[in-house]
Amino acid sequence: MILGFVGSFSDIPFVDIIEWIGTFAFAISGIRLAAKKEFDLFGAYVVGLLTAIGGGTIRDVLLQTTPFWMSSSRYMVCTGIALLFVIVFRKYIVRLNITFFIFDAIGLALFTVVGLEKTLAFHSPFWVAAIMGIMTGVAGGVLRDISIAEIPLIFRNEIYASACLAGCLCYYVGLRLGIDQTVNQLLSASLIVITRVLSVRFGIGLPKIKPEDS
Amino acid sequence: MILGFVGSFSDIPFVDIIEWIGTFAFAISGIRLAAKKEFDLFGAYVVGLLTAIGGGTIRDVLLQTTPFWMSSSRYMVCTGIALLFVIVFRKYIVRLNITFFIFDAIGLALFTVVGLEKTLAFHSPFWVAAIMGIMTGVAGGVLRDISIAEIPLIFRNEIYASACLAGCLCYYVGLRLGIDQTVNQLLSASLIVITRVLSVRFGIGLPKIKPEDS
Amino acid sequence: MILGFVGSFSDIPFVDIIEWIGTFAFAISGIRLAAKKEFDLFGAYVVGLLTAIGGGTIRDVLLQTTPFWMSSSRYMVCTGIALLFVIVFRKYIVRLNITFFIFDAIGLALFTVVGLEKTLAFHSPFWVAAIMGIMTGVAGGVLRDISIAEIPLIFRNEIYASACLAGCLCYYVGLRLGIDQTVNQLLSASLIVITRVLSVRFGIGLPKIKPEDS
Repeated sequence: MILGFVGSFSDIPFVDIIEWIGTFAFAISGIRLAAKKEFDLFGAYVVGLLTAIGGGTIRDVLLQTTPFWMSSSRYMVCTGIALLFVIVFRKYIVRLNITFFIFDAIGLALFTVVGLEKTLAFHSPFWVAAIMGIMTGVAGGVLRDISIAEIPLIFRNEIYASACLAGCLCYYVGLRLGIDQTVNQLLSASLIVITRVLSVRFGIGLPKIKPEDS
Repeated sequence: MILGFVGSFSDIPFVDIIEWIGTFAFAISGIRLAAKKEFDLFGAYVVGLLTAIGGGTIRDVLLQTTPFWMSSSRYMVCTGIALLFVIVFRKYIVRLNITFFIFDAIGLALFTVVGLEKTLAFHSPFWVAAIMGIMTGVAGGVLRDISIAEIPLIFRNEIYASACLAGCLCYYVGLRLGIDQTVNQLLSASLIVITRVLSVRFGIGLPKIKPEDS
Repeated sequence: MILGFVGSFSDIPFVDIIEWIGTFAFAISGIRLAAKKEFDLFGAYVVGLLTAIGGGTIRDVLLQTTPFWMSSSRYMVCTGIALLFVIVFRKYIVRLNITFFIFDAIGLALFTVVGLEKTLAFHSPFWVAAIMGIMTGVAGGVLRDISIAEIPLIFRNEIYASACLAGCLCYYVGLRLGIDQTVNQLLSASLIVITRVLSVRFGIGLPKIKPEDS
């Protein structure tokens, strides 16, 4: 069961692995930022957890359903492992930046597709599901940045939420064309990962909005 | 239907126009602040949206009902138009400051009355409805400021939430006196707008709370 | 009735007094920080209220139940009294620091046990109840710090959430041993208070997580 969603996606045990990878990568990103701010162990754990489960929690609150993480302690455990990992491999972690970037992109893709499908299962219109999918993917990072009193990164940098949006549009086209659900999931998720990778590789970002002349 | 509330207010098509005006003005205020911080287009859109729908969303979550914006895409569309507007009229927007101020006051008044009445429709006591009304009016601006890592403006400046409170008290008196609902709505909303305008015109604010001597 | 929880705890009128003390101390801590930032009266009241009811509100939203403060205006009243208190006794308040520290510890202990038991009453597993208990105790302070655009204190300082965790573990052991509920509540709450007092008295904190070498 992925993030509480029951469907064809969850019949593949492969998805469980991806979910661990995504949760782990999201938690790591929170814990590393907390370390920069000299948080204590508890603070680092909380920021890691917020990053990993924040998006899905806001989605579930808006959908008026039980937050997904209450049904399995795996997210707590996974965040604990991430904390241990950052402590033990502190000196080597910077060399793994590319690995974590890929993990993060995979997590982003999975979380988005899961959020989208969970919302569709509540008979919401597609545009609501797309918002929920994007939110599931990015809101954890926003909460992470707010909890360390910084301006959320995704509001100023790179293609991130836009990659999720591209994935949602891809999913919509697949749905309309009647493509098999699993294929559609894989296609949309892949598009998110590829968009992320290419945009970072080639330094492509959204245009900034210009301030008024003062 | 205004913000999901069904009642005499919503029978006047006039209210739809006011709701567009309010949503537009709130979104503009978020987008302009995002522009100052050099957010990208996505970030500016999100901050605009948070400002416009944040208060009503928190209210609906606390009332355990479906967030109002899920039932109509107009809020997304209106925020998109506001974003386009800020981009296209960037050079002239500062001259419209007074117009936006009036729009914002109208939006504040409408959101407060709508939040109040929606909560009363849930059979909550009046003091809960007043809190919800004020929250519907001001919480979007608080979320806006938190999302750009600034101290919320309304905690330090001017009569803002207090204007909403005055409107709620006026509504209560009207309710007790058995005044017609539509008249009561108009009276309370007008009081909020007038209070806002006068307080800004004459530079009246709440007293600050003094820090302790250190 | 404490924070909406019905149980043996609430049969002791003593608990009502403790709840007032806890709410008062939490509100005071928010209002004092707001005063430092030169908030106006409204802003100070809101920050005080957020500190006092924020944790329980997030818990109730996640549990999909009506926020506890909607059923009694006592929390609004108590925060109002706290605001008056800070204004009137501004010059003497710093001398009461130790008193407020003790009140705060008592509030923390009560809120944690109440949050824990309320969640158990929803048939959640114990680990979920422990998270909710800790959240009830500490999330108000996190919201307080976010609303004044500062990094949450509890992420960097002292034993605070860890004291709540110790109390939850104590409660779990008592539950397993079949200890009388009231005794278990008192034991767990006392452990939280004692842990807080000792950790501050002896300057004990959690280890910080080390940043990566850059």
